[in-house]
Amino acid sequence: MDETCVNVKRLEENEEQCTDEDKTDQDKTEEKLISSNEHSWKPWQQSRSRIRECVLYVKKVLVSFASMVWYCYALLGIITALMSFFMDMTVAKLLNAHQWLYGCLSGHHLLQFLCWTLYPACLCALSTSFAHSICPFSAGQLHIHLRAVWLWMDMPDYLSLSNLFAKLFGLICTLASGSTVFLGKVGPFVHLSIMVGAFMSRLHVSCRGGKQRAAKGEMLVVASAVGVASCFGAPVSGVLFSIEVMGTHYSVRDYCPCFFAAACGAITFRLLSVCSRDQETTQALFKTSFSSDLPYQPFEIFIFALLGLFCSILSCIYLFCHRWALRFVKTNKPISRLLATEKSLYSAIVAFLLACFTFYHSAGHFIAAELTMKQLLTSLLDGTSWYSVSQNASALPEPQKTFWQAWNPPGKSYFQTLGFFITAKVGLLVVACTLPLPAGYFMPVFVYGAAVGRLAGEGSAYLLSDGISSAKSLINPGSYALAGAAAFSGAVTHTLSPALLALEMSGQCSHAVPALVATLVSNAVARAKHRPSFYDGISLIKQLPHLPSLIRACPKLWFCHVFYVFSCLPDSPILLGTINKSQLREHLHQHRNEGLCKQLEEVCCIQPVRLHLTPESTVKQAHCIMSATGEQRLFITESGRLCGIITWKEMKKIIKEMATEV
Amino acid sequence: MDETCVNVKRLEENEEQCTDEDKTDQDKTEEKLISSNEHSWKPWQQSRSRIRECVLYVKKVLVSFASMVWYCYALLGIITALMSFFMDMTVAKLLNAHQWLYGCLSGHHLLQFLCWTLYPACLCALSTSFAHSICPFSAGQLHIHLRAVWLWMDMPDYLSLSNLFAKLFGLICTLASGSTVFLGKVGPFVHLSIMVGAFMSRLHVSCRGGKQRAAKGEMLVVASAVGVASCFGAPVSGVLFSIEVMGTHYSVRDYCPCFFAAACGAITFRLLSVCSRDQETTQALFKTSFSSDLPYQPFEIFIFALLGLFCSILSCIYLFCHRWALRFVKTNKPISRLLATEKSLYSAIVAFLLACFTFYHSAGHFIAAELTMKQLLTSLLDGTSWYSVSQNASALPEPQKTFWQAWNPPGKSYFQTLGFFITAKVGLLVVACTLPLPAGYFMPVFVYGAAVGRLAGEGSAYLLSDGISSAKSLINPGSYALAGAAAFSGAVTHTLSPALLALEMSGQCSHAVPALVATLVSNAVARAKHRPSFYDGISLIKQLPHLPSLIRACPKLWFCHVFYVFSCLPDSPILLGTINKSQLREHLHQHRNEGLCKQLEEVCCIQPVRLHLTPESTVKQAHCIMSATGEQRLFITESGRLCGIITWKEMKKIIKEMATEV
Repeated sequence: MDETCVNVKRLEENEEQCTDEDKTDQDKTEEKLISSNEHSWKPWQQSRSRIRECVLYVKKVLVSFASMVWYCYALLGIITALMSFFMDMTVAKLLNAHQWLYGCLSGHHLLQFLCWTLYPACLCALSTSFAHSICPFSAGQLHIHLRAVWLWMDMPDYLSLSNLFAKLFGLICTLASGSTVFLGKVGPFVHLSIMVGAFMSRLHVSCRGGKQRAAKGEMLVVASAVGVASCFGAPVSGVLFSIEVMGTHYSVRDYCPCFFAAACGAITFRLLSVCSRDQETTQALFKTSFSSDLPYQPFEIFIFALLGLFCSILSCIYLFCHRWALRFVKTNKPISRLLATEKSLYSAIVAFLLACFTFYHSAGHFIAAELTMKQLLTSLLDGTSWYSVSQNASALPEPQKTFWQAWNPPGKSYFQTLGFFITAKVGLLVVACTLPLPAGYFMPVFVYGAAVGRLAGEGSAYLLSDGISSAKSLINPGSYALAGAAAFSGAVTHTLSPALLALEMSGQCSHAVPALVATLVSNAVARAKHRPSFYDGISLIKQLPHLPSLIRACPKLWFCHVFYVFSCLPDSPILLGTINKSQLREHLHQHRNEGLCKQLEEVCCIQPVRLHLTPESTVKQAHCIMSATGEQRLFITESGRLCGIITWKEMKKIIKEMATEV
Repeated sequence: MDETCVNVKRLEENEEQCTDEDKTDQDKTEEKLISSNEHSWKPWQQSRSRIRECVLYVKKVLVSFASMVWYCYALLGIITALMSFFMDMTVAKLLNAHQWLYGCLSGHHLLQFLCWTLYPACLCALSTSFAHSICPFSAGQLHIHLRAVWLWMDMPDYLSLSNLFAKLFGLICTLASGSTVFLGKVGPFVHLSIMVGAFMSRLHVSCRGGKQRAAKGEMLVVASAVGVASCFGAPVSGVLFSIEVMGTHYSVRDYCPCFFAAACGAITFRLLSVCSRDQETTQALFKTSFSSDLPYQPFEIFIFALLGLFCSILSCIYLFCHRWALRFVKTNKPISRLLATEKSLYSAIVAFLLACFTFYHSAGHFIAAELTMKQLLTSLLDGTSWYSVSQNASALPEPQKTFWQAWNPPGKSYFQTLGFFITAKVGLLVVACTLPLPAGYFMPVFVYGAAVGRLAGEGSAYLLSDGISSAKSLINPGSYALAGAAAFSGAVTHTLSPALLALEMSGQCSHAVPALVATLVSNAVARAKHRPSFYDGISLIKQLPHLPSLIRACPKLWFCHVFYVFSCLPDSPILLGTINKSQLREHLHQHRNEGLCKQLEEVCCIQPVRLHLTPESTVKQAHCIMSATGEQRLFITESGRLCGIITWKEMKKIIKEMATEV
């Protein structure tokens, strides 16, 4: 009986702070209002109180229609879309500045060379130093953690405001280096949107209090969907991406919020481009205008499947080179020392070397290096075949003419440039992936796939230039580029959502079947024999953790929050159940005098413990159960004897330690 | 020690049959081959053995590339698509026959009336009697069980071959009744595809053996996605539908198979329509050709949101009427007695009354009753506004002219017909929903929503007939019909996938934003205040089960498979862990003589039990944990003492009993 009392007391001490948290914040706001009314010396009292009333009324009306969390989701989508849009605008301005400067210097080869090489080198150095000096977490390779467990914890550093700006600035610098460095936006942008999601979740908690954990977990999953949706204005692929990236951690109750927030983000993103007079109406980001009367002949599906096969083989080569490069950078002594001490210098050197290669007068004019990534994708997705264009190239309108000239430098045909582009870019991309700066690796892979598809499409169009069968319809190489982009990026990342993303980005529903066929074939081949994906490759090389057993991860199980333990045997306690703390305290207060002689069962109702785990359970299993059932704590018992309790907070701590150990 | 021995023995007896199952079926096939070789008297021995070798070789090659289950998924998709296609073809022929007969009788009003009314009445009676006499499970309302738990169990009757054909035949009859009865295909078709999925899963088990449970559960989830995908040739919405319909039961490991099988189904379905010369190439089912240069003005998004709001209000009215009708049918004595005894008669009477109302010379010519459901949807989704058509209607090409005449009967404008259609169809649809035959309720709702959207679109086009702003672009009422269809069907079913389904069915990616906005708004309003959805409404009226606590569902917990129990206290056993059965038997065999004096721990290693539940856990919780962790059994303990074990099989049995009780 003595032991029980001690435990009960300990419990009271430990949980004191929780009761304050239990009070809803609504009560607090009301208390504040009352207290602020006491300061009668403040000016404009009447008008202020009227405004306050209005605000409270608006809040009441809003909450009466939908729960507060939905407004947070909408806000998350809108803020992320704003961020994405203004980032795109800044990057476009920086790229224009570079192109303008480069144009001004025409005639002076040396100055042009310096302009071409130093601009990205400086930007990459800046990006790296910014990312690493403000916050070491914001480095590029971290976005792969998304897949594992990082999403599920508070990491104040990882999701702080300073980190957000560091990452934002770093990402803008990376993107402004343009197609020289050839890196994308998605990965870090998803991280940014998760940071915004963390803020929203704090906002929501401060609005309502309680249900902190659930809302937070959901908010972060939603944020990952919003990230992709706002990046490309593609809501459904955002949702599919979040399902794929979260894997078994995805809970279906997040589906609706994901969809809603992603739609808000995508619509805002598209409306912003209307407001800025880029587009007349809300349209797809890389809008194509394929002929929709007869998009493709049925037999072309076979060519699309072959294209998928080819893309998957290329993806295996690319992934092999990528792993090799990562291993080389890690094991080569001079480079690894340079990377450990002078990250910015390393970035500058690599960017300079890449720029040297892509300079127009070296190899640049074989790989259309003067086009930005957006222009590259637009030119590759163009609906008219270059074979037909080559017959009257002079009659082209302006943007198409630039693209045509970029892919058809004097003395080379577009087959040669495309072939050289595909060969050279593997190496360049692998080198760029070793840069320690915030950067996405999806877009480059997507563009690369589009080039592969374009080559296949142009080849088919050339071979079948007389039109197919009786219909005399011409092959559309743009659709091959679309399917190739989806297939290659799907094969590299082992995901299927790129198929839908390609369709949403280009606004071409009519080519759903080709994109799907190519992506499915390439995924099937790429995943066969358990080959590692891009993310798995990084995890392998960097030896990131898999989830070990509970006992290994946390040898001394946390033993603080024992609620009620009935000791039946002398040696160790046997768990009977838990008691509602407040109820217990109330009873203790009421029966202070007679009190402690009574059996505890008479005083309060003992809630049985529903879930037991043994110390042999793995962390993953415990995490899985916690996520699935929403339990806040699990009891660890061994033949009924309580060994310890693991809470959700503890769980996050364990996983965090595991992740930071590496 | 004695108790231990007894338990071990019981275990041996109980689990004898399991060992045989552990043998992979591959071994069995090889054994069979060897035994069949002994029958040397059979003819063509050489050629047969060569064929057998070839088959085995092909199987080996296939399996070396991908696991057998993937071929099953592909086959599932292909078979379902074939079923869907041939069903559509049969229905089209039956509808044509009806139209031809009706046309032949023109001039004879009475004969026309009989033809118009008796054809659907007979078909409905046939459908009902077929569905109920062959198998009572195949009745219409059952498809709502999908949402709950039915997917997760073997129910031999529910998934039998006879039931498949009964349902298939019944569904064809229902669909052939046409727009008179105004019922759709999706719900029962998903059930059909789940039946095919059950066969596939049996095929897979017979191919490989083992892992029966996991494969089966997956196969059924996949089948639900395939059902929708093959019904409309829309793969991605199929996947989203399966996520939404399975709710918390959806496991993300099913995502990839779902996507793959749905793509196979959708592609096959589209290719079949190419082969049958319906279409020149694989296209969307209800392909629209909206102008894609300027699909809509940004300010129209506001009108789309209002349309969503209007649709949600209408959906609330519809759902209220629907629940009222179901309750009326259940409580009204003559009707409920008729329904209990003479289902076919009831169907025939209701279909006859519906047909009387929709006959051309009664109210039929106000609601475009001569158009089939496909024609209705096609005419409503047409891209040109009827306002512009009305100015030169005589110049229209053939199909459009029929549609135009149907919506513009002499003396009525299309506004009046649309308005009357929307008013009258609520009542007709509610009456049709009480019919006890296999029918889907999604398509009618979708068409109804399209009519609502068309009315809004035509209204806007009429009011803004001079073109909007400076761009002089005209409003496209077809896009309003699209958004309205998505919004209304989303609001009725409380799902978001109709937005994507509308886009995939029409092949209009450019109108993603309007459809999404309208669907989100309508869903938000429809779900507010926890209003019941269409499916919830049926569950409410029919009092279908929610998941109760384990103890209530199964008072005598199953106590058969005790593996190893160490009795530490005299009164009840305390669970230590499990022992590998085969290991134990082996040791018992080896040490038969010295044997039973040794401590069991010395003989074999005791595997600790990782998960405990208490009798207070709910069935839902146990089911959730089993699905999430893939555990085959859960131990129920109370303060360490074993109360019972619940296996996956048991779990299914409990849920089945709960479902059939009602």
